Amino acid sequence: MSALPSAKALIPFVSVENMMRLVHHLGIERVLSELTDTIEDDFRRWESFDKTSRIASHSRDGVIELMPTSDGEIYGFKYVNGHPKNMAAGLQTVTAFGLLADVATGYPVLLTEMTLLTALRTAATSAMAARHLAPEGTRVMAMIGNGAQAEFQALAMKAVLGITEIRLYDIDRRATEKTLRNLAGCGLALQACESAEQAIEGAGIITTCTADKQYATILTDNMIGSGVHINAIGGDCPGKTELHRDILLRADTFVEYPPQTRIEGEIQQMAPDYPVTELWKVVRGEKLGRRDARQITLFDSVGFAVEDFSALRYVRAALAGTDFFQQIDIIADPDDPRDLFGMLQRAAA
Amino acid sequence: MSALPSAKALIPFVSVENMMRLVHHLGIERVLSELTDTIEDDFRRWESFDKTSRIASHSRDGVIELMPTSDGEIYGFKYVNGHPKNMAAGLQTVTAFGLLADVATGYPVLLTEMTLLTALRTAATSAMAARHLAPEGTRVMAMIGNGAQAEFQALAMKAVLGITEIRLYDIDRRATEKTLRNLAGCGLALQACESAEQAIEGAGIITTCTADKQYATILTDNMIGSGVHINAIGGDCPGKTELHRDILLRADTFVEYPPQTRIEGEIQQMAPDYPVTELWKVVRGEKLGRRDARQITLFDSVGFAVEDFSALRYVRAALAGTDFFQQIDIIADPDDPRDLFGMLQRAAA
Repeated sequence: MSALPSAKALIPFVSVENMMRLVHHLGIERVLSELTDTIEDDFRRWESFDKTSRIASHSRDGVIELMPTSDGEIYGFKYVNGHPKNMAAGLQTVTAFGLLADVATGYPVLLTEMTLLTALRTAATSAMAARHLAPEGTRVMAMIGNGAQAEFQALAMKAVLGITEIRLYDIDRRATEKTLRNLAGCGLALQACESAEQAIEGAGIITTCTADKQYATILTDNMIGSGVHINAIGGDCPGKTELHRDILLRADTFVEYPPQTRIEGEIQQMAPDYPVTELWKVVRGEKLGRRDARQITLFDSVGFAVEDFSALRYVRAALAGTDFFQQIDIIADPDDPRDLFGMLQRAAA
Repeated sequence: MSALPSAKALIPFVSVENMMRLVHHLGIERVLSELTDTIEDDFRRWESFDKTSRIASHSRDGVIELMPTSDGEIYGFKYVNGHPKNMAAGLQTVTAFGLLADVATGYPVLLTEMTLLTALRTAATSAMAARHLAPEGTRVMAMIGNGAQAEFQALAMKAVLGITEIRLYDIDRRATEKTLRNLAGCGLALQACESAEQAIEGAGIITTCTADKQYATILTDNMIGSGVHINAIGGDCPGKTELHRDILLRADTFVEYPPQTRIEGEIQQMAPDYPVTELWKVVRGEKLGRRDARQITLFDSVGFAVEDFSALRYVRAALAGTDFFQQIDIIADPDDPRDLFGMLQRAAA
């Protein structure tokens, strides 16, 4: 009888510190690029996933959500909160962690922080959508809302689409300055702008990522010229939108999982049968992405469990042969599975 | 800039080893007794909980479930699997872990193993139900199915109801021998029986806790005399029952959360409007528990998220002032919440 937990009882846990080590070990642009491909692979086999809308617990100040999915071999879920007022208290608006488990046994195989990983996968999902929807040859992106997601979006669009210039705007100048500082020296031309209108000038991709939990109008119809791709990240829960509905009427809207997006996305402003195209069908070539150079495309991004699944399995594979994790004993594993009590009893000795 | 994670980034994690230390530190009967009271307190304020059926992901070999709930101040969820075939492979049929989070901020405040804790809370829930439903003065319990839950049930009934004798039966004699061994010296009179019929003789409480994932008939109608309390644990998922339906017709059935029990419990054999009494109403004195000495009462136990919540908050309180936990950094907590990328970037240095 060993006093140590058995190997079956241990699962790798990736702390925030180890996630940062892993990202630096691989290089952030490589991570974003490989993550984009991993997400695209999973969108290509979309129908093999057990899909459900997230399970949300709403409260006055925010929401706590569980986002599970499974491909029949591996099960994954993410815990994530959204508390817009947290920022004023010096806390993260969004924190997350996630888990993978073996479907055949139900045993967990990976536990990891997902605050950073969610930021990475959100940017990678945007890049994947833009790869299919952005106007050809675009080199300029407007980034409206320069919060925690801004740099990840910029680097994903650089790594995956070859974006060379980012035009930044935020109602809080300090957020823009933070983003300028963080992206200095990364090989992108950066332009701080005085208004959303100025940021949009010449941009082929317009990314909106603001954080207010309320109906907002970050973009109005007259600001949007033909041919652009709008990457709308911030409208991601009931009551939270960023675009004027007139823009939606001129755009073709692409979504992750319609039942969820109709509740949480920009299209919550529209009728329940408002026409949308599922992104996975574009990835599979079953539906058209960008049709022509004048079309306005809109990726109404809310984040879906399959993307977290992709990120989790990417991390699991990337950990192999590294020491960017600790083993934690979160599973009780008695020698005789019926003898849970005996295991407890012997631990007293 | 400290290289260490900030205090906000750290949450206490209770490993299996530390859970065992905590239980031994307090004493298992004390834990079972206090847990019974904690669960009863939460049943008394049942209406203050945000309740939902568990979110299940079914596969050929088992099920993985998420069980969330919240009382508006604290949010909790449990991850739990059920894989009956695991035992043959030397694995636990059920493993679990759980989490508590602060509703106001969405920040996790406790992560803990719950394989052991689920065994404890399941037994405590049975004891709480029996406190309201078992015939007065009962000192004998039959325990049919001597698997991982058996000893916990026996000790909870001893600690909470003053049960002095346990009559054990299992189709696998080795399971009974294991239970005899584990309970030796705990102050209970133990009787190994050759059949379920023999085990039931003279018992005021009949606990069934078998593990096959199929419709089974552990108890038939002719075996059940008047006046007993049946504590049915093993019928807890679709397709898995232990009692012949004729028993249900003679018994008054008490349940945790009817929408879940009608799918998972013994009453899945009955019509959707089959009459049941919610246990929380008995605890509050709004409904009668045991009415008379001849009544057959049935607690159709499937396990509900509120019980896990109670167990989690009990552990959280019990940890105070002890060292039965480790701190893990599962939350990214940059100095400036908008500066997640800056935190990542500075970690490279």
